Amino acid sequence: MDLDALEADARSGLTRLAYDYYAGGADDELTLADNVAAWQRLRLRPRVLRDVSTVDISTTVLGAPVRMPVLVAPTAYQRLAHEEGERANARGTAAAGSLLIVSTLATVSLEDVAAAAPQAPRWMQIYLQKDKAINAELVARAAAAGYRALVLTVDLPVAGYRRRDERNGFTLPPGMTMANFGTRHPDLPHGGSGLAAHVVQELAANVTAADVEWLAGQSAMPVLVKGVLRGDDAADCVRAGAAGVVVSNHGGRQLDGAIATADALPEVLDAVGGDVEVYVDGGVRRGTDVVKALAMGARAVLIGRPAIWGLATGGAGGVQAVLDGFGEELERAMRLCGARTVAELTPDLLAR
Amino acid sequence: MDLDALEADARSGLTRLAYDYYAGGADDELTLADNVAAWQRLRLRPRVLRDVSTVDISTTVLGAPVRMPVLVAPTAYQRLAHEEGERANARGTAAAGSLLIVSTLATVSLEDVAAAAPQAPRWMQIYLQKDKAINAELVARAAAAGYRALVLTVDLPVAGYRRRDERNGFTLPPGMTMANFGTRHPDLPHGGSGLAAHVVQELAANVTAADVEWLAGQSAMPVLVKGVLRGDDAADCVRAGAAGVVVSNHGGRQLDGAIATADALPEVLDAVGGDVEVYVDGGVRRGTDVVKALAMGARAVLIGRPAIWGLATGGAGGVQAVLDGFGEELERAMRLCGARTVAELTPDLLAR
Amino acid sequence: MDLDALEADARSGLTRLAYDYYAGGADDELTLADNVAAWQRLRLRPRVLRDVSTVDISTTVLGAPVRMPVLVAPTAYQRLAHEEGERANARGTAAAGSLLIVSTLATVSLEDVAAAAPQAPRWMQIYLQKDKAINAELVARAAAAGYRALVLTVDLPVAGYRRRDERNGFTLPPGMTMANFGTRHPDLPHGGSGLAAHVVQELAANVTAADVEWLAGQSAMPVLVKGVLRGDDAADCVRAGAAGVVVSNHGGRQLDGAIATADALPEVLDAVGGDVEVYVDGGVRRGTDVVKALAMGARAVLIGRPAIWGLATGGAGGVQAVLDGFGEELERAMRLCGARTVAELTPDLLAR
Amino acid sequence: MDLDALEADARSGLTRLAYDYYAGGADDELTLADNVAAWQRLRLRPRVLRDVSTVDISTTVLGAPVRMPVLVAPTAYQRLAHEEGERANARGTAAAGSLLIVSTLATVSLEDVAAAAPQAPRWMQIYLQKDKAINAELVARAAAAGYRALVLTVDLPVAGYRRRDERNGFTLPPGMTMANFGTRHPDLPHGGSGLAAHVVQELAANVTAADVEWLAGQSAMPVLVKGVLRGDDAADCVRAGAAGVVVSNHGGRQLDGAIATADALPEVLDAVGGDVEVYVDGGVRRGTDVVKALAMGARAVLIGRPAIWGLATGGAGGVQAVLDGFGEELERAMRLCGARTVAELTPDLLAR
Repeated sequence: MDLDALEADARSGLTRLAYDYYAGGADDELTLADNVAAWQRLRLRPRVLRDVSTVDISTTVLGAPVRMPVLVAPTAYQRLAHEEGERANARGTAAAGSLLIVSTLATVSLEDVAAAAPQAPRWMQIYLQKDKAINAELVARAAAAGYRALVLTVDLPVAGYRRRDERNGFTLPPGMTMANFGTRHPDLPHGGSGLAAHVVQELAANVTAADVEWLAGQSAMPVLVKGVLRGDDAADCVRAGAAGVVVSNHGGRQLDGAIATADALPEVLDAVGGDVEVYVDGGVRRGTDVVKALAMGARAVLIGRPAIWGLATGGAGGVQAVLDGFGEELERAMRLCGARTVAELTPDLLAR
Repeated sequence: MDLDALEADARSGLTRLAYDYYAGGADDELTLADNVAAWQRLRLRPRVLRDVSTVDISTTVLGAPVRMPVLVAPTAYQRLAHEEGERANARGTAAAGSLLIVSTLATVSLEDVAAAAPQAPRWMQIYLQKDKAINAELVARAAAAGYRALVLTVDLPVAGYRRRDERNGFTLPPGMTMANFGTRHPDLPHGGSGLAAHVVQELAANVTAADVEWLAGQSAMPVLVKGVLRGDDAADCVRAGAAGVVVSNHGGRQLDGAIATADALPEVLDAVGGDVEVYVDGGVRRGTDVVKALAMGARAVLIGRPAIWGLATGGAGGVQAVLDGFGEELERAMRLCGARTVAELTPDLLAR
Repeated sequence: MDLDALEADARSGLTRLAYDYYAGGADDELTLADNVAAWQRLRLRPRVLRDVSTVDISTTVLGAPVRMPVLVAPTAYQRLAHEEGERANARGTAAAGSLLIVSTLATVSLEDVAAAAPQAPRWMQIYLQKDKAINAELVARAAAAGYRALVLTVDLPVAGYRRRDERNGFTLPPGMTMANFGTRHPDLPHGGSGLAAHVVQELAANVTAADVEWLAGQSAMPVLVKGVLRGDDAADCVRAGAAGVVVSNHGGRQLDGAIATADALPEVLDAVGGDVEVYVDGGVRRGTDVVKALAMGARAVLIGRPAIWGLATGGAGGVQAVLDGFGEELERAMRLCGARTVAELTPDLLAR
Repeated sequence: MDLDALEADARSGLTRLAYDYYAGGADDELTLADNVAAWQRLRLRPRVLRDVSTVDISTTVLGAPVRMPVLVAPTAYQRLAHEEGERANARGTAAAGSLLIVSTLATVSLEDVAAAAPQAPRWMQIYLQKDKAINAELVARAAAAGYRALVLTVDLPVAGYRRRDERNGFTLPPGMTMANFGTRHPDLPHGGSGLAAHVVQELAANVTAADVEWLAGQSAMPVLVKGVLRGDDAADCVRAGAAGVVVSNHGGRQLDGAIATADALPEVLDAVGGDVEVYVDGGVRRGTDVVKALAMGARAVLIGRPAIWGLATGGAGGVQAVLDGFGEELERAMRLCGARTVAELTPDLLAR
């Protein structure tokens, strides 16, 4: 799989506004780069002399079987990438046997995303709104539409400063709306980064562990907390009823200088890895990165930008191709590491 | 905030002599570069699940309230940057709610700087002169003009070798004088670096802790010692009556190869951080750098070059814009770190 | 010796398909680069005041005397590099007093390679085939043709993803065959990397320690296991009857992100270095690299690409020149380290 | 001082053969680069609040007073750099109050060098010749000509492979001879590196501690051993009667990959620093490098290439200017470090 070529291809077909929105990070993009570099810095100690004629890359995530421990991260505004937006992503992810986490800020309603791939497992990403009634309604709709878990993003009390979006005056083009909000506030503000303004206007900056508890009580769906980079915070999430955490720095788009996720993962696993499932995203670009994350103890990884480049270049088929590529790379990497199942991806595979 | 673009803009409007004077460092400019890199090397462990709907970035410095823990460092000859020089800097700093440290080597007299922003807090930077009577007079004038503290610079027994200034034959253009010296020696020598020659002719190379004591006894104003990079020296300053120290390597302009200030800060804080206020300058370019410095235990940071680029491009408004930019970045970074007040910027925010 | 110039020279004379096949690595070629960098990172502590007027670089490998501890690694399809392929390599290696490890995937039959340099010591590289009868036959033929050891490669249960080969549709040109397989499957599949397809079709992915034992029982020839990067695996090999191991990551062509061989070598030596001979390949480009490997405790190093560049540019003479170059560099490096024999290449020569 | 500019200037006036001879290193020039980088990696912890109005940079070396702890390293064939060669170097070094170590491979006889600056202290560099009678004669002549010490170079049992010299067919141009050898073998061989061939033909490769003893017994002059990078070797030298050692890797010209001298110095000082004087050369380019070396405990540093660039561009005056530049930089650096004498350059000045 050649993700660099795929990104270049996607870039050539996207508006600058759209490409920059997906590709960019906060401030000096130090964390954006470090996320990728941190996986690459890790070295593997492959095992040989194992019978790897049959390798099984499948796993379960919160009990749901998936073909591979590579899920699709929630990313907003996917119709910027492809006419069919989240619908195509859902179909492609389903075809690859993976699981899509649908962003609250989707440009297709959560019900329509569900309808696009009704049989596939799906999780709903949630931001705490200033008006909690909106969340209550979204949760009810997600439950009704067969979503199986909620992924509460907690690292966006304010938007990171994304220079590219400011420069581009990032907003949604005519005809594209935040479809989950109906007629309430479907558009993004204009002038500077519309997303940054939206966050200030609509999202809560006072999310605490009590809100995790509140959200967990709104439905039978388990709640994952996304955006955790510390063991103590992860433990707080678990105490508040979270079924797991996603180690994430929002793809380097929020706090620039935040620790790379590959560097933060061990601390979080130490704190709660024995109790709940721990996921990680940020900079995962290769099957070997998946091996590294799972060898540390992660349940699965989430990919964001790679799926978007697939979506942009090939719609559902493009997403599926990227996931299949990860699956193929993971299977090969596991064979080359002497691991037949994801359970055999153990810490001794990592040097030092 | 895009300081790189601002500097480029400033550069295009300045003479080479002026730009080089501000931008340059000593010898091979190793420390100049390392100051910036040292902050960037540090990684943050942001906290989530805190109520950061209200964030207060204000603090006090030697008891004086300021809107943010970002002060303006003393830099010389500001009329090289802007027609109004230190006057504009004072107005811009005051408008941003920050505090200006006025250089003895100002091109506007300390009284005129004070008059430009009479209500704002201001500190006076001091070099020990060979002729201490000059210092005594300057201190008296500063006290009379409402300055609230003295900042004694102790890392200039001789000027660092600044190749750019040597090459440019750095001196003051006609009509620009060191205004605090009246008619005594208002001009810089010509040939090579005029500043270097001035230091040799006028400044004391025998400053010791006894002089800190002497200076502290000259007025009611507290004395900060600027240019300290070691714990033992900091402790000596405190014993001599200093109200605090500024961890500084003079912006990489004196001893090339000197430790970066972000690397020296912990040692100084260990030695005296519990007793007096510790400030730091050098390479601070982002709100996240301020977070890092305060998380270590610094009281506030000083910015030098960024304020100059603001001054050069926009006078008082430019200075204010830079400070407001720092304030905005700091507030955002604190939110993203889960810190509601500067007191909540604690060491656990730093990785490793 | 100037291997960079030699490689450039070889490149200009080879097809892109052939050059890329030899030069390339897996995925992002991180391990390919790290292999070279890892040797370069090591620093030597040379001894002085030793009588090094006479330096002996010779050693024995599995009891066979060789002129230097630099052997020629098994590499496939050498007629891609030079009309005479493995024949020329055998002659050149013999002329230099070194030892050739002949690849199963040679484009000249193992008997013809033997005939090209009948007096020289030679070892036969083996992949476990899905059809073990093929291995049994190859072993019998190798024994009959005077090969002295078997080198079982165990890091290829599947081929690494080599982007260059995929792009080039790597396969053998008309008239070139895998000569050891007679008419059974002499050609590589077409489309994508033919080698990758061949591996899937023909090679076993279930090689275990039991197969090492099986192979050791097939002939009187000792068996080295190649592709080991961990102490525990090396110990397993020894328990299974291996006469030694080759620390190798297949030249960075299999698992990208695998630990560099210079970094893996100490662990393997700790585990089995006292019991069996340990070899290493990957990134060895200088006589000083040989010194470093032997100072750690390796018996000898294997060179792969350098020999191919010699072969491509000068046939047998080119191979000899490269080996002579290594010998000359090694002798000089030993002199400069104060070591008169390879036994005097001790761990204290390495810094830290 | 701008040594980069000086080198560029020198380069433009020299033949490629001459420039490459001075500038180049062995093999991949890793150690050549690391020598410079190793000093730059070290960070200083300057002291403030010291009376540095008077700074004394002078010291003694083996009892001889010199104006600064910066001596001129032995380098060969100086008439390649300047018509007057070693004569000019001797005059320039004397004018600067420093000390010249004259190479056995000088292009001016040791007596003529002595006559060029009769009052200045000078040491004679020695290679052990295969024919020890030559050494005995050279020592007697050196004693007669007022040399005060012998510097025995022990890291050249064979010449390092210097690609540039091989490519240039390094030899002496017509009319230039190794003047200390009279008519015995005044010329260098032709073809490849003439120096490398000369070493093989004339120099001993079996120098041991016994030869140090032997040399020490040949005259009343103390013997320094140059080319030591290890504590155990240094201790051997002292036991054999050496008055000190020079930590050196021959300017990166011998064993490529050898530890940088700044990294080797502490070990040697630990072993013998309390007993004898320890000198260091390699990569010293700034007054701050001198500070670092002396802070570790070195008695003085030797500069090689910088003096040659001075010689090439300005003859005696050029050498003096470079040394004066080092003196000026050292004095400034000491002031900025709070050190009034070289005795005050203590280990606490180095970070970590």
